[in-house]
Amino acid sequence: MKMKLNSFLFFFIGVFCCHSFLCQTREITNKPTHMKSNFSLAIHGGAGNILNRNLSPEKEEAYRNKMKEALKKGYDMLAKGDSAVNVVEAVIKILEDSPLFNAGKGAVFSHEGRNEMDAAIMNGKTLDAGAVANVRTIKNPISAASMIMRNSNFVLLSGEGAERFAKNNNVEIVDTAYFFDQNRWDEYLKVKDSNSTKLDHDSSTGMVNPTNTIDKFGTVGCVVLDTYGNLASGTSTGGTVNKKYNRIGDSPLIGAGTYANNKTCAVSCTGHGEDFIKIVAAHTVSALMEYKRMKLSTAANEVIFKKLAEIKGRGGLIAIDRQGNISMPFNTSGMFRGFVEANGNMKVFIYKEE
Amino acid sequence: MKMKLNSFLFFFIGVFCCHSFLCQTREITNKPTHMKSNFSLAIHGGAGNILNRNLSPEKEEAYRNKMKEALKKGYDMLAKGDSAVNVVEAVIKILEDSPLFNAGKGAVFSHEGRNEMDAAIMNGKTLDAGAVANVRTIKNPISAASMIMRNSNFVLLSGEGAERFAKNNNVEIVDTAYFFDQNRWDEYLKVKDSNSTKLDHDSSTGMVNPTNTIDKFGTVGCVVLDTYGNLASGTSTGGTVNKKYNRIGDSPLIGAGTYANNKTCAVSCTGHGEDFIKIVAAHTVSALMEYKRMKLSTAANEVIFKKLAEIKGRGGLIAIDRQGNISMPFNTSGMFRGFVEANGNMKVFIYKEE
Repeated sequence: MKMKLNSFLFFFIGVFCCHSFLCQTREITNKPTHMKSNFSLAIHGGAGNILNRNLSPEKEEAYRNKMKEALKKGYDMLAKGDSAVNVVEAVIKILEDSPLFNAGKGAVFSHEGRNEMDAAIMNGKTLDAGAVANVRTIKNPISAASMIMRNSNFVLLSGEGAERFAKNNNVEIVDTAYFFDQNRWDEYLKVKDSNSTKLDHDSSTGMVNPTNTIDKFGTVGCVVLDTYGNLASGTSTGGTVNKKYNRIGDSPLIGAGTYANNKTCAVSCTGHGEDFIKIVAAHTVSALMEYKRMKLSTAANEVIFKKLAEIKGRGGLIAIDRQGNISMPFNTSGMFRGFVEANGNMKVFIYKEE
Repeated sequence: MKMKLNSFLFFFIGVFCCHSFLCQTREITNKPTHMKSNFSLAIHGGAGNILNRNLSPEKEEAYRNKMKEALKKGYDMLAKGDSAVNVVEAVIKILEDSPLFNAGKGAVFSHEGRNEMDAAIMNGKTLDAGAVANVRTIKNPISAASMIMRNSNFVLLSGEGAERFAKNNNVEIVDTAYFFDQNRWDEYLKVKDSNSTKLDHDSSTGMVNPTNTIDKFGTVGCVVLDTYGNLASGTSTGGTVNKKYNRIGDSPLIGAGTYANNKTCAVSCTGHGEDFIKIVAAHTVSALMEYKRMKLSTAANEVIFKKLAEIKGRGGLIAIDRQGNISMPFNTSGMFRGFVEANGNMKVFIYKEE
C-alpha cells in the first residue's frame, strides 16, 4: 500500500515537473494590471549599415540628442499619466519633424522624385488601429493614422483619399515642398537611374552609397507601456529610396511593421519592408508570446535572428511587454534606438557594439 | 529498492503522459511531403447576411454553377500537376470575371462612384507574396498581384503606380467602364448619401438593403494544396459598398486577409476587413497551428468564433492544410463556398444550414 501511495505521489510529481518545465517561459498574463509606478518607452530611428566611420561626430551627436529629446518628451507625458497612444503619437511627431530620420520632414524620395509616406499606430488595449499609405501632403503622417484610429471606422487609408480624410479632420496639411531636403534629393539623384531598390540589398554592404547608408532602412518607431498597464506602438517612414509604383512597405501594415496587444507586447519594425511583410514580423513576436509562452526577448530574437534570417531579410525591431521589459534586436550593423524607464534611466544607442 | 524503482517508473510515466497530452494536437510537421495523389482546393465568394429568401432560385443556381466552374478549372489544373499559385490565380480570375461576385467585373462602387479593387496572392512554399490596392483599370487584380510576386521585389503596390507596373508587365488593362454593372450602381446609389459604411454593420441584420446584402462582404478567395504538397492562397475584392478615402481592407494585406505557409496552412478571409486587420486573422490561424499545435479546424474556428467575436467582427474564412483538410467557418448567415478533392468529390454551399 505504501509503495502504491509513493508511486502515485511520484507520478504526480512527474506530471508537475513536466508541466512546469514546458510552461516555464510563461511570464505574461492577461490579467489587467495597474502598474502606477511602472512605465517605459522605447524608440528606433531606423536600422541599416550604420558604421562609425560613416557618421561624423557632429552628426552622431545630433542623432543622439534628437533621440533623447523624443524620449524626454515621452517620459514627461507618461509621468503625468498620459496614455500610451498619445505618447506614441507625440514622440513620433518629434522624429518626423527632424530631417535626420526617414519619416515626415526627412522622408526619402521615390523613383518619381516624390516624398510618399506611410505610418501606423495601434492601441494594445482595444486593438484599434489607424494607418496611412502613400501620403504626400500630411505634415505628420502619424497624426493622420491616429485620427483614423480615433475618428473613423477604417484602419488603412491611402493616397489622395487619406489626405482628404486628414484635411476633413483638421490634421495639418502642408505643401509638398515642405518635405524637400537637399541631402535626400542628392541621395535620390545618385540612385534614381538604377532600376531597382533591391540591388542595394543584394550587395555585400547593403549600401546605396557608403556615406548615405544610414538612411537605407530609415524608419521611426515607438513602443510604450503607460502607467495604466496599456501598450501601444507606432511606426512612420518615407519608405525606401527610389521606390516605385506607389509601393507600400511594412510600416503601415498592422501585423507586419506595427502591432500592439495588451495580452503580449507592442512592436515596431524597421528594415527591408517586404521581408517583414512575408513573415508578418510584428504579429509573430506577439504570437510566439501568446501561443508558445516565450518571453519578450526570446520572441523578438526568434523573429529577427531566425524568421527574418531564413528569408535573408535585414532589419530590426523594438518591442515592449506589460512588465516594461524592452527588447531591441537587429541584424544590421546598427540601429538608432533608445529607451527610458520610470526611474529616469535613459539610454540611446547607434552601433551594434554599444 | 523495489519501491524506488517503481517510483521512478511512475515518475517517467507521469512525464510521458503529460507530454503526450500537451502535444496531442500536433498534426502538422515541417517535413516536405510529396503527396502525388493528394490535392484539394477550396473557394469562397464572400460571407454576409445571405438568406434563402433574398436569393431567387435562378440567382442561387447561377452562384452555384459559377462556383462549380471555378472548382472544375482548379481541379483539372491540379490533376495535370499545375502549381498551387497558378491554380489560385486561374480560379480567382473566373470569379473576378463574373459580375456575381464583388471582385473584378462585379466590384462594388466606392463613395466616389469608382470601382477600387484590392487583391493578394501568397506562395506557401517560399513565402513570396504580391498584392495590389486601389486599382481601377486592371482587368484581373489577382493577375497583377501574381505578377508582382513573380516579377518584382515588391509585395504591395497601390493605385496608379500598381496600374503602371501592371501595364509595364503586360497584365491586361481595361477602361474603367469595363467594371460598370447596373445592379452595383443601383446598390451604390441607395447608400451613397449615408455617411459611413460602418452603420450597416451596427444594425441588427448587418444589411445595407435586405435584397442586396449578399454583396455586403463580397470578396472572392481560393486556397490550394497541389500535388507537390505546396500551399497557396489568394483573395480579390471590390471592398465595401460606399467605402471612402481610398480605404484599403484586409484582402491585400498579407497576414490579415491572405496568408500561406507550407509549415501550416493557406487562408483567405472575407468579412468586415477592418476587424480582420485588427486580429491579423489569416496569420493567426497559421500561428495557432505552428505555435499552439492546433489542428486546422480548431485554429480556424478559434479565429472566427473567438478572436473575431471578441471584437464583434463578422465574416468567415477558408483554410487548407498540407494534408488537404479544409475548414470554412463563418459567423454570418451565409458564405458562398465550395471545395473539390482529388477523388473528384465536389461540393458548393451558400447558407449556414447546408
